[in-house]
Amino acid sequence: MTTQVFGHKSPDTDSTGSPIIWAWYMTEIKGEAAKPVLLGEPNTEAAFMLEHWNLDKPEIIGDVEDGAPVVIVDTNNPAELPANVNGADIRGIIDHHKLVGGLETKGPIDIRIEPLACTATIMHKMIGKDMAQAPQAIKGAMLTCILSDTLEFRSPTTTQEDRAVAEALAQELGLDLTDYAAKMFAAKSDVSAFSDAELIRMDSKEYEVDGTKFRVSVLETTAPEMPLGRKESLMASMKDVAAEDGVDEVLLFVVDILKEEATLLVPNDLVKGVAEKSFGATVTGDTVVLPGVMSRKKQIIPNLKV
Amino acid sequence: MTTQVFGHKSPDTDSTGSPIIWAWYMTEIKGEAAKPVLLGEPNTEAAFMLEHWNLDKPEIIGDVEDGAPVVIVDTNNPAELPANVNGADIRGIIDHHKLVGGLETKGPIDIRIEPLACTATIMHKMIGKDMAQAPQAIKGAMLTCILSDTLEFRSPTTTQEDRAVAEALAQELGLDLTDYAAKMFAAKSDVSAFSDAELIRMDSKEYEVDGTKFRVSVLETTAPEMPLGRKESLMASMKDVAAEDGVDEVLLFVVDILKEEATLLVPNDLVKGVAEKSFGATVTGDTVVLPGVMSRKKQIIPNLKV
Repeated sequence: MTTQVFGHKSPDTDSTGSPIIWAWYMTEIKGEAAKPVLLGEPNTEAAFMLEHWNLDKPEIIGDVEDGAPVVIVDTNNPAELPANVNGADIRGIIDHHKLVGGLETKGPIDIRIEPLACTATIMHKMIGKDMAQAPQAIKGAMLTCILSDTLEFRSPTTTQEDRAVAEALAQELGLDLTDYAAKMFAAKSDVSAFSDAELIRMDSKEYEVDGTKFRVSVLETTAPEMPLGRKESLMASMKDVAAEDGVDEVLLFVVDILKEEATLLVPNDLVKGVAEKSFGATVTGDTVVLPGVMSRKKQIIPNLKV
Repeated sequence: MTTQVFGHKSPDTDSTGSPIIWAWYMTEIKGEAAKPVLLGEPNTEAAFMLEHWNLDKPEIIGDVEDGAPVVIVDTNNPAELPANVNGADIRGIIDHHKLVGGLETKGPIDIRIEPLACTATIMHKMIGKDMAQAPQAIKGAMLTCILSDTLEFRSPTTTQEDRAVAEALAQELGLDLTDYAAKMFAAKSDVSAFSDAELIRMDSKEYEVDGTKFRVSVLETTAPEMPLGRKESLMASMKDVAAEDGVDEVLLFVVDILKEEATLLVPNDLVKGVAEKSFGATVTGDTVVLPGVMSRKKQIIPNLKV
């Protein structure tokens, strides 16, 4: 039975590329039939990666069958996975997020979680010398995942290991890293096709602080004027999204990759208080700039106060 | 702050030896202050290992402080760990059991779980070429852990990797593997100093089947006549242990390492039914022999039916 390899819902570049990389490794190197699948439409940067490297877009699935063999990458959070994930036969987990608890396996399996910026970096290490057999497209997907998750090494989640792997891959591929990253970020920044609610949910995680449930949404972009030009309708939409998703408040951070700062939308006094208490910011209007803030994992979530 | 490295409660050989191995690696190779600790008295085989290799018995601790740095080995089950484990700063997990769910970490950390017979085998791989710097006692502890968890390669949990590492270590140590294993098992088999309740709880895991809570206890021994000679008082004690520990029934399997079979004590009709439904056994008296059954993880738990 073919093993399905998938990342999290609302797939970003790492959750689109890492399943492709690992399914290649399982099938071609280990001789175990595997295929990458997605839990939703890939974002525009992930779509750029597929097109640039001429990779097939993986099938989008809804749920998984009882007993179906699966490998989970780039998350260990049941809330970001198919409803029946604990009913499946989880064969492996490769991830770089904190352990959330909630996934259960039927027997001992291979689990590898490391505090690196990107799942693909961990895979590069696990594949080891077999990387010599990887086609250009697999190396290209790996490079794209790492540049995406590190924001071209600007994010504070970046480790020396992520950087070294990405630079080596760029050299092997004969690719100008900065030029390629600029194309990726331009693809990610083109959000014109998305509705406000889609933008809010695109890269978003739920997080609770002292009983208040937040949807913490991030838009990484090289063109912050695109989402910020829509701030009024985005703020209006935040109320509806919060109600629909059963959270108290949406926090939307527009991360300017090049200027290395985030702009938080401030629709009300609750969010104003969050900005002041969490980031020591002085809020005067309906947005506030947070210099240096780029990472939800390292800078936003650990500081969040109500 | 010194990192505490520990395994599960009721420490067996792997949960005594692996913390010693990993604390050595962290301190001597990685330069991070660490010390092994235990969550209870080591069993007689683990005590033999400490004495044979002239290793200090690690300090026994009760609970862990809020924010204290810890590395967890040989389990990922909160029920087998200090009450405040999720309040500690979990820095790493190295294990070979199924993922139970329930542990949470504050950020992404190093987690390595593999379906091998023994935690020490995973550590041997992770330590890699730095094993060249390991003192005899660390190699000896590794070997003891692997021989213990594999019952000298007789257990069906044994992988080729466990076996290869153990055989290489025995050779490096200039040690007759079979002779050494016999000494270990003799130490484990000397259960004369333990009360019935201590014997029942010595190597025991709770497991629920269709609403019935079991304490599934295993006694691995080369002298089955020792515990079986006390079967009446053991069976009487099982009732008290079940009541005290809040489970419905104790299942006590006396595993004969050399004959590769288990004898299950059958104090009542519930356990008789379990033996018949789970193992297809025909029960006539107050014990039943289960040929080939040696592993709780691979053979007992997966088959348990009420």
